[in-house]
Amino acid sequence: MSLRLFDYPASANCYKVRLLLAQLGRPYERILIDIFGGETLSDEYAAVNPARETPVLELDDGSYLPESGAILAYLAEGTAFMPTDPVERAQVLRWLLFEQTGVMTPIGGLRFRLLTGRLSAEASERRRSLALAALEVLQRHLDRHDFFVGHHYTVADIAIYGYAHVAGEAGVDLADFPAVQAWCARVAGQDGHMNDLEPYPANAMAGAGRSIYG
Amino acid sequence: MSLRLFDYPASANCYKVRLLLAQLGRPYERILIDIFGGETLSDEYAAVNPARETPVLELDDGSYLPESGAILAYLAEGTAFMPTDPVERAQVLRWLLFEQTGVMTPIGGLRFRLLTGRLSAEASERRRSLALAALEVLQRHLDRHDFFVGHHYTVADIAIYGYAHVAGEAGVDLADFPAVQAWCARVAGQDGHMNDLEPYPANAMAGAGRSIYG
Repeated sequence: MSLRLFDYPASANCYKVRLLLAQLGRPYERILIDIFGGETLSDEYAAVNPARETPVLELDDGSYLPESGAILAYLAEGTAFMPTDPVERAQVLRWLLFEQTGVMTPIGGLRFRLLTGRLSAEASERRRSLALAALEVLQRHLDRHDFFVGHHYTVADIAIYGYAHVAGEAGVDLADFPAVQAWCARVAGQDGHMNDLEPYPANAMAGAGRSIYG
Repeated sequence: MSLRLFDYPASANCYKVRLLLAQLGRPYERILIDIFGGETLSDEYAAVNPARETPVLELDDGSYLPESGAILAYLAEGTAFMPTDPVERAQVLRWLLFEQTGVMTPIGGLRFRLLTGRLSAEASERRRSLALAALEVLQRHLDRHDFFVGHHYTVADIAIYGYAHVAGEAGVDLADFPAVQAWCARVAGQDGHMNDLEPYPANAMAGAGRSIYG
């Protein structure tokens, strides 16, 4: 059996995995999940991922691995995208974790709401201030480092790039965070870089479909 | 040098690390951070963790490791609390990641707001429905498994226990999730289990202090 990716083309969490698979040159089967067509709401999908989210990687042994950060770390093991030093490995994990609460939640959440017409004033203001705080954290780190961990490109960079590079679509101007902007260019300049993140489809618009995201 | 933990006694993220350190029998120095006294807002603290959060573990080499999940994984390496099988290791990471967005954010966030008088109706309703969805995910998994990964207690269990065991303080009744309740009892029955999670102090109450949490 080969790898199968349960994939949503407009999800930056899914894009992260596609990017690493491309840079590793690993073949995989892409299983497109129509989130807003209700496909994650089925009992079948709950068996793939009880959290009803994408991406999920089906491994060679037929087991299912959800969470983009866990998929990145698993695929990167034994490659140049994951350090071997224990402290550097822990720092990669630290950034994978920070990214999900600090970057994806505010920036990805705000972007999704803006692009699909799901804006509530209170939630937007809160997410906007968290998004700016997140970019401040990234800026502070990238002011003194070319990459997030150990002076070279790892899955920590891939994970953070996913939503950071589309911060503009969340209404945040990356020009205010020049070290982040320069790092985005470094990531985009890596061997084998590609970007196939798609726009949200029509059924993702508020009121048009049904999903765990409303 | 020995391990130093930048620690907040009322944070379940910090409690997770204290629990693992206790179960590993590892000595460490505890550096109490008065979050609502503004201690994470200093330039000195930003050098420890630019995200201005606790816990942070200062390692033997003097470097700083933030993010409770990364600290747990680092300390567990080479012990019974972290599997050796690559797929099981990836599943541990998957649950460490899910816990931060799926468990800590809704349950921890709601608990914090309830216990410290920071309730806004919209945010509470949203977090409450996410908290119930998270417990549904945990219940579904624990219906068929004694522990989160590989039939025994790992740092995945420690991470999820942190906020799941105080779901009642977030206004969610664990009796509605019997497999989660039974698993909490199994975790509490592990060798060396201890619980020193403290109540929020007076300066954590809304309007009483200053911190990144308002």
